[in-house]
Amino acid sequence: MTPQRVTLITLGVRDLARARAFYESLGWRDTRPQEGIVFYQLNGLALGLFPLADLAKDQTRNMSDLGTGAMTLAINYGSESEVDTAYAAAIRAGAAGLKRPEKVFWGGYSGYYADPDGHVWEVAHNPFWPLSEDGSLTLPTDEN
Amino acid sequence: MTPQRVTLITLGVRDLARARAFYESLGWRDTRPQEGIVFYQLNGLALGLFPLADLAKDQTRNMSDLGTGAMTLAINYGSESEVDTAYAAAIRAGAAGLKRPEKVFWGGYSGYYADPDGHVWEVAHNPFWPLSEDGSLTLPTDEN
Repeated sequence: MTPQRVTLITLGVRDLARARAFYESLGWRDTRPQEGIVFYQLNGLALGLFPLADLAKDQTRNMSDLGTGAMTLAINYGSESEVDTAYAAAIRAGAAGLKRPEKVFWGGYSGYYADPDGHVWEVAHNPFWPLSEDGSLTLPTDEN
Repeated sequence: MTPQRVTLITLGVRDLARARAFYESLGWRDTRPQEGIVFYQLNGLALGLFPLADLAKDQTRNMSDLGTGAMTLAINYGSESEVDTAYAAAIRAGAAGLKRPEKVFWGGYSGYYADPDGHVWEVAHNPFWPLSEDGSLTLPTDEN
């Protein structure tokens, strides 16, 4: 079964530096500098800023299809097989498959489906992001 | 400062019963029956299903402006004055004000702004939803 969990919220952004500056103005501090993506540690989950073009590509959709408010809700799992199981369950439940789970360039395993209203969910296994017992995600930092 | 926190993810849906059935198919169970909205307890945050028309109205926007993927990220605060402070900080940081915080029909206090990419954030105080020390939200149930 799909756990009642959201571990990463991704915001597609037109200008990464501008978006980061906005959240920095709100007092948010990202975990560590990375090329092309910005991550924030939230309360047991993370939020990422990701260029809209990259997000569209990642979802194998046209950028124009994402529209204002483009957003992905991610559920991370402990293994690739759990991702496959979750993806299959979503399709059985009526989700529209956008990308069957596959190994991805950042070293993980990820797929995308859309719920009946077009909300895009990512199911993923990230070997560099261990999950806590309670399903929450604590981003790695330089200290750990 | 705005805490690095998301306490509620709201999905605007065209058909509440259909959306609830979808998540139920995934194994999700809502906290308790309520008219016109469905809530799920997640890992230290909640996810709500809310009719798209109601969400648009709540944001004082046209339904057609929300588009596919319409979604609100909420940050809950401990008091109305904290909501006002957060809203003002967002506007200063360049957010587009959608609805200045005001008392709302469900007994709380809420405002909306859009980040530079049109992602819609709600800043809210809900006296019926106390926050944990760590900023996480545990939805009230019939047992507590």
